Amino acid sequence: MELYEGIMTTRAMRRFTAEPVTRDEIVRCLKAAVQAPSGGNIQPWQFLVVTDAETRAAVGDIYRRSYDRYEPALLAVLPPFRSDEDEASFRRTAAASRHLADHLGDAAAMVLFLMPAISMTLADDQGDLDVGTPYASVYPAVQNFLLAARDLGIGTALTTVYRIYQQELRDLLEIPERYEVVALVPMGRPVGRFGVARRRPAEAITSWDRFGRRDT
Amino acid sequence: MELYEGIMTTRAMRRFTAEPVTRDEIVRCLKAAVQAPSGGNIQPWQFLVVTDAETRAAVGDIYRRSYDRYEPALLAVLPPFRSDEDEASFRRTAAASRHLADHLGDAAAMVLFLMPAISMTLADDQGDLDVGTPYASVYPAVQNFLLAARDLGIGTALTTVYRIYQQELRDLLEIPERYEVVALVPMGRPVGRFGVARRRPAEAITSWDRFGRRDT
Repeated sequence: MELYEGIMTTRAMRRFTAEPVTRDEIVRCLKAAVQAPSGGNIQPWQFLVVTDAETRAAVGDIYRRSYDRYEPALLAVLPPFRSDEDEASFRRTAAASRHLADHLGDAAAMVLFLMPAISMTLADDQGDLDVGTPYASVYPAVQNFLLAARDLGIGTALTTVYRIYQQELRDLLEIPERYEVVALVPMGRPVGRFGVARRRPAEAITSWDRFGRRDT
Repeated sequence: MELYEGIMTTRAMRRFTAEPVTRDEIVRCLKAAVQAPSGGNIQPWQFLVVTDAETRAAVGDIYRRSYDRYEPALLAVLPPFRSDEDEASFRRTAAASRHLADHLGDAAAMVLFLMPAISMTLADDQGDLDVGTPYASVYPAVQNFLLAARDLGIGTALTTVYRIYQQELRDLLEIPERYEVVALVPMGRPVGRFGVARRRPAEAITSWDRFGRRDT
């Protein structure tokens, strides 16, 4: 798989076959994750892989109950669609997301990305220094993971909806309170094909030298 | 360039030659950025590319002054090194980061990732729903950008230190207040080679089925 093609065709996959994902495959993806950049190279991540069937089912239950609250809350605040294509696209994704919510526990494996609470406040005699969010140091690693899975033909989806019941997830998996679960990524052989996902064209949202200047 | 090799060998590059980076190359990287996932596919990003020499110099000045405050503040809170190798590695990175701070304006181009303020609070009759941070929807796109640049032999670094003077940057580039500048990525042909950066081994920070369980 060529690098650029792999990036372009890595999209969320939400339906999986019953085929397994091996430990070596998961570790290979985690090795890609750790090569992502982090502020001051602090690497603020730990990984928790769930493969045990009973534990997967319990995580799946937490996820489904989270999604049951998320879905109607999202629909209640959704702005009007700008086109029929937009609406059709939303409906397809919503159906796939519902499917994932009902079957997450059946995914061959799931990987949780954990970030320790970082209390590195920088300051000088002029006051506190804002040098950005710790999330900047962990989501690039998640993306590397998704791409490395793509390289193996393994489908993934970056989910965060479980956070509605994050404490239940911590309790189930014995995750210490000081860790935030920043992503839960189900993995499996995808039903359906990888491909270029629907996006607004980059050119339409790119400015040159001053904000809003659409061309060089 | 093979996908997995590209991921593994994309590291921060902080010294650049004077060679240009073309508009087509930059757009190609931005097309990769937009293929990243975002919550509900909201794609909460805009890009601002700076190539004009005078503007680059002005951005470089803001960056250098930010770094001048960041560097001593970081050194003041640094924990003791765990080994001589750790210390040597830190010193090398610190020297390269200092170099970047002093020469950012000379980079062939720089790309700013802008995220609009997102006020999508989800709630139901039981209360507000935490479904994660909007940063989860933008840093994967930044990572895609860095990898697509790697594919072209272009070096990059994900920086956030400019945030100390973020408002100056907004004023200079006419960025509306509602956008947060979540990353500033200088680009250029690298001095030095791409390669696998120093990281803690993935196996040492991976748990299986329960937190802290180090093997399956």
